[in-house]
Amino acid sequence: MNEFNRRNFLQASAISAAALASLSICTDAQASILPRKTKVKVAKGEVILFQGDSITDAGRSRDKQKADVANNQPGLGNGYAWLAAGQLLVDRPADELRIFNRGISGHKVFQLAERWQTDCLDLKPDVLSILIGVNDIWHSLDPNLNYKGTVEIYERDYHALVERTKKALPKVTLVVCEPFVLRCGAVTDKWFPEFDKYRAAAKRVADKHHATFVPFQAMFDAAIKFAPPEHWAGDGVHPSSAGAALMAHFWLKAVGA
Amino acid sequence: MNEFNRRNFLQASAISAAALASLSICTDAQASILPRKTKVKVAKGEVILFQGDSITDAGRSRDKQKADVANNQPGLGNGYAWLAAGQLLVDRPADELRIFNRGISGHKVFQLAERWQTDCLDLKPDVLSILIGVNDIWHSLDPNLNYKGTVEIYERDYHALVERTKKALPKVTLVVCEPFVLRCGAVTDKWFPEFDKYRAAAKRVADKHHATFVPFQAMFDAAIKFAPPEHWAGDGVHPSSAGAALMAHFWLKAVGA
Repeated sequence: MNEFNRRNFLQASAISAAALASLSICTDAQASILPRKTKVKVAKGEVILFQGDSITDAGRSRDKQKADVANNQPGLGNGYAWLAAGQLLVDRPADELRIFNRGISGHKVFQLAERWQTDCLDLKPDVLSILIGVNDIWHSLDPNLNYKGTVEIYERDYHALVERTKKALPKVTLVVCEPFVLRCGAVTDKWFPEFDKYRAAAKRVADKHHATFVPFQAMFDAAIKFAPPEHWAGDGVHPSSAGAALMAHFWLKAVGA
Repeated sequence: MNEFNRRNFLQASAISAAALASLSICTDAQASILPRKTKVKVAKGEVILFQGDSITDAGRSRDKQKADVANNQPGLGNGYAWLAAGQLLVDRPADELRIFNRGISGHKVFQLAERWQTDCLDLKPDVLSILIGVNDIWHSLDPNLNYKGTVEIYERDYHALVERTKKALPKVTLVVCEPFVLRCGAVTDKWFPEFDKYRAAAKRVADKHHATFVPFQAMFDAAIKFAPPEHWAGDGVHPSSAGAALMAHFWLKAVGA
């Protein structure tokens, strides 16, 4: 009565991967929004690390006793990272994956660099996913913050960060997530076309280092055909419940995890 | 390039519902662990309310400005309720669902009754999901707590609560979730067979009031064939990331949302 077999359980748990496939299946006239070549294979026992800013942070606990425990909700926060982790841990219950989050709200790429030894290299991730860039432009748009960053600085620092990472961790599998905004809330016309340059820079970083690129902007551009921008991110930057859930599905699909 | 059509988007977002179907598809020799008859149909614009104890609460904000905003992560907490909400809001972006959580950690069924006017009836839910019972037995097992509850009291109070709800909200669609435990952490042999009586009582409440019953115990009994109990709930009571994600998928499937 209360039985189902392993095959059915695994079918069930392949959910996001299987069904999200359709997110990239387009009509014949359309190309997929997901890249077809680079796919991350997450192997048994591997360490997955999510890095970034507030979107990744999503209220995660800074308490070391929580943050240092793999797969633990308080340490993983309330955003796409935890949602993706939860799904992975359902999909692959016996694979002993160890998933961490070290996103910090407000951070720009140079601030990742400042804490990279402790918050990335020391954790020895097998799979490293980075989502960074929205503050690099946002803080430069706010005269009160006196931040003088440019897209050239962003790209230079991002390249350097990835090079440093590959030197320390030659076997790391890298996932570069596209910075994104929704056109609502804090996101006004003054963000454009500059913001598009940051997205392009992130894509160049991904391509140069053969990383998997997760095109979140393309995803949200598609999503707003079905509900207004505010449904996905009230302030245009921080995803809603729906936005975070969509990101998690899309991330899992993009990395083939 | 960045296009996909509505049909593909909706296919993508039907993920959990579609793929979790397999969670209830068993071999010919096996019966489904999900009931086949009662299915909740959540209609456009409806209010969904999650009620219960710490498993539902999952760290949700008590700040009224957060808790009273529908679909808002801080108000929905970090558990299965938020995960199910996030998925629903991805699946049905244009349907203007309004989802709330009013679980409170530590609560037993009589404590739900004490706050039912404010925390349930006043919210006028169209769909009400209740998960309650683990503290009703747990607190009775702890001599320090001096709680004298029994399964008879649990069932009597639960029936009364549901009757009161149906009187105030005759059209409410009711979802009764099965209390569950994993055999690890705080859950020792002394819980049994008494705990099974609480599960059976919850099932009788569901059946008597024609509610959809979500058999979480059956789900976890199946899940432990694929990873140890601790993978799903470290202390045997509170779901891990994986446990909460599995619950959300299963809840969505069970209620047909």
